Amino acid sequence: MKATVSRRAHFNAAHRLYRKDWTDEKNDTVFGKCNNPNFHGHNYELVVSVTDAIDPDTGYVIDIKTLKDIIKEEVEDAFDHKNLNLDVPDFKDLIPTAENIAVVIYNKIKPRLKATSLLEITLYETPRNFITYSGN
Amino acid sequence: MKATVSRRAHFNAAHRLYRKDWTDEKNDTVFGKCNNPNFHGHNYELVVSVTDAIDPDTGYVIDIKTLKDIIKEEVEDAFDHKNLNLDVPDFKDLIPTAENIAVVIYNKIKPRLKATSLLEITLYETPRNFITYSGN
Amino acid sequence: MKATVSRRAHFNAAHRLYRKDWTDEKNDTVFGKCNNPNFHGHNYELVVSVTDAIDPDTGYVIDIKTLKDIIKEEVEDAFDHKNLNLDVPDFKDLIPTAENIAVVIYNKIKPRLKATSLLEITLYETPRNFITYSGN
Amino acid sequence: MKATVSRRAHFNAAHRLYRKDWTDEKNDTVFGKCNNPNFHGHNYELVVSVTDAIDPDTGYVIDIKTLKDIIKEEVEDAFDHKNLNLDVPDFKDLIPTAENIAVVIYNKIKPRLKATSLLEITLYETPRNFITYSGN
Amino acid sequence: MKATVSRRAHFNAAHRLYRKDWTDEKNDTVFGKCNNPNFHGHNYELVVSVTDAIDPDTGYVIDIKTLKDIIKEEVEDAFDHKNLNLDVPDFKDLIPTAENIAVVIYNKIKPRLKATSLLEITLYETPRNFITYSGN
Amino acid sequence: MKATVSRRAHFNAAHRLYRKDWTDEKNDTVFGKCNNPNFHGHNYELVVSVTDAIDPDTGYVIDIKTLKDIIKEEVEDAFDHKNLNLDVPDFKDLIPTAENIAVVIYNKIKPRLKATSLLEITLYETPRNFITYSGN
Repeated sequence: MKATVSRRAHFNAAHRLYRKDWTDEKNDTVFGKCNNPNFHGHNYELVVSVTDAIDPDTGYVIDIKTLKDIIKEEVEDAFDHKNLNLDVPDFKDLIPTAENIAVVIYNKIKPRLKATSLLEITLYETPRNFITYSGN
Repeated sequence: MKATVSRRAHFNAAHRLYRKDWTDEKNDTVFGKCNNPNFHGHNYELVVSVTDAIDPDTGYVIDIKTLKDIIKEEVEDAFDHKNLNLDVPDFKDLIPTAENIAVVIYNKIKPRLKATSLLEITLYETPRNFITYSGN
Repeated sequence: MKATVSRRAHFNAAHRLYRKDWTDEKNDTVFGKCNNPNFHGHNYELVVSVTDAIDPDTGYVIDIKTLKDIIKEEVEDAFDHKNLNLDVPDFKDLIPTAENIAVVIYNKIKPRLKATSLLEITLYETPRNFITYSGN
Repeated sequence: MKATVSRRAHFNAAHRLYRKDWTDEKNDTVFGKCNNPNFHGHNYELVVSVTDAIDPDTGYVIDIKTLKDIIKEEVEDAFDHKNLNLDVPDFKDLIPTAENIAVVIYNKIKPRLKATSLLEITLYETPRNFITYSGN
Repeated sequence: MKATVSRRAHFNAAHRLYRKDWTDEKNDTVFGKCNNPNFHGHNYELVVSVTDAIDPDTGYVIDIKTLKDIIKEEVEDAFDHKNLNLDVPDFKDLIPTAENIAVVIYNKIKPRLKATSLLEITLYETPRNFITYSGN
Repeated sequence: MKATVSRRAHFNAAHRLYRKDWTDEKNDTVFGKCNNPNFHGHNYELVVSVTDAIDPDTGYVIDIKTLKDIIKEEVEDAFDHKNLNLDVPDFKDLIPTAENIAVVIYNKIKPRLKATSLLEITLYETPRNFITYSGN
């Protein structure tokens, strides 16, 4: 029997959407007010979902405490109260759109799980805008 | 790499569940208090989810501003502060259950997206009752 | 020791904002799209808050089951799945704005409470628009 | 055309995570503070999702009133204001983890639905921890 | 200039409403299913609100980190994953109704604040039932 | 009869808590990770509450459309997708703590209301931390 365990977490960060190799005009056209050179920010809400067999001994797919610790180490400690563009090496050459942040989080958490576990990342940039990514 | 972008929107509308070709008794039996001839109403909450490849140039699946505009034009302008039965032609011969409203919204938004994009509609009729439809 | 007990409830209803003694033009100017002659509707969320001394015998200000029953009898049975303008006598000569609905609910619940109890009504017409009324 | 109808419900219960056949030390190591011998408790939020064809006559996948009644009979009446370990026979020999509670709820509701209907259970143990189970 | 700073926290606990000096019949009449002898439980959501002058040097009423730590020490460490009746001395001779829990939390946090600070406690026993207490 | 009308809005912004006239060490001690020199950010949720008499002609305290427009002009256009420290003149010499942001918003909206109207600002910096300010 397989089930999915989901854990909700959050972090606050500043970011800016722009490409160094584009002109200011092109950045403005594509990214609009998200291209403010002084940055803006969000309270990102994150849901990390792990699917695998329920261990018949413990009744757990994964100990939620273990999952909480992985999220803290890989995401909260790395991103919370940071400027994603300036403080987080993953976004040195990658635009920190919600899509790309979700992919980066997936790639950081996936190796921490059992090989059999499926992973899905849901990232809320605002309560009205969110992204789901599951590695394919 | 594929991801899903979701945008939440809302509209307020009146509606009534009934079939002209049924007797009042049968309408009452099937639709109960939802068959009030003077109508009742809801704050519909809508989540529109688009799945496609992440554009490596922009880091976007779809510009959320574009998706927001499509939802405004196809759904909010057409349904908000309306009587679904009397004011919206889509429901002239179709009972405005949450299921049917979700299908109508799907059919209005799908042609506005790229052919490769998958679409899923989630429609909350109340915070406790909601529908998901993805076109099959 | 005084405390406030609050109970959340909800009802769905259709309504229209207009005055019979005004012209259509004036109704449109003042009430805009809320003046749709075919009605629109909302999921109203209601919070009923009762302030009084904590009974030292029971540890209760008021039994929440009693409060729940009062709300059901006075509000939910009277308003849910109704057209406020056509089906509810309280709004025969009163525009069903959120302000006026909150006052009507206050006047219906207040006589059901102990004379010493203070009452406050919070009525959400949408998640973004709400009214508070406490009888003065 | 297939759609999914979801209904949200809730129940409050006490529980304790432990195995009779393990030592206290092992129970403490595996289940931590969830192994309090005097129990702790939760407000469980439940989402029951049924997928099937939309009936062209009624516009319903399933009458939400029917689904609400099934949830009341199978889950709320059986679990609400109960001690899952002591009061609920399903957990006599099964650890009431959120995973196992979701499986039990699935197995109780599935036979009440049409054979063609797919069922998914989402169980929130807290607003930050939740489980999804769909029978495979 | 005075402002109010509020911090939201939560804890999970089991409890039972009954009085040792009442008969089982009277306990059942007054407390109904909340009198289950095997206990039931809740996810309590807590809002702690502190009102005082804004410090012109820091722009703070109180450092939210300080308030978070006080709540952890006085409430979360004492109540989380506990049986309020059996594990928490404050409720040895006090019925753990939401009203009384709010008063106990007020009395534990108030001495930790500056003498000039006003304190208000809001305690959600469920998303639909909550208590406010401010010490008078 | 007086009532309170509340309107919820939101804006996203970057900010940093620090004082130019303090050493880095003192800024770090007082403001901790909120003093990241590269800024961090939030989705600010705002509730603007206006208390006044209900106009017997319209049933309105204030037309919610008018209130929505005032919030857009005074707050959303000025703060959304901005760096509060660098882009917003109000914070040139004022630390953008949530307390100070609430005071600034109060001072911008108050002159736009009738002289008789009372105003209260609630500002959520995160879902768990929020400020209330009502001008005294």
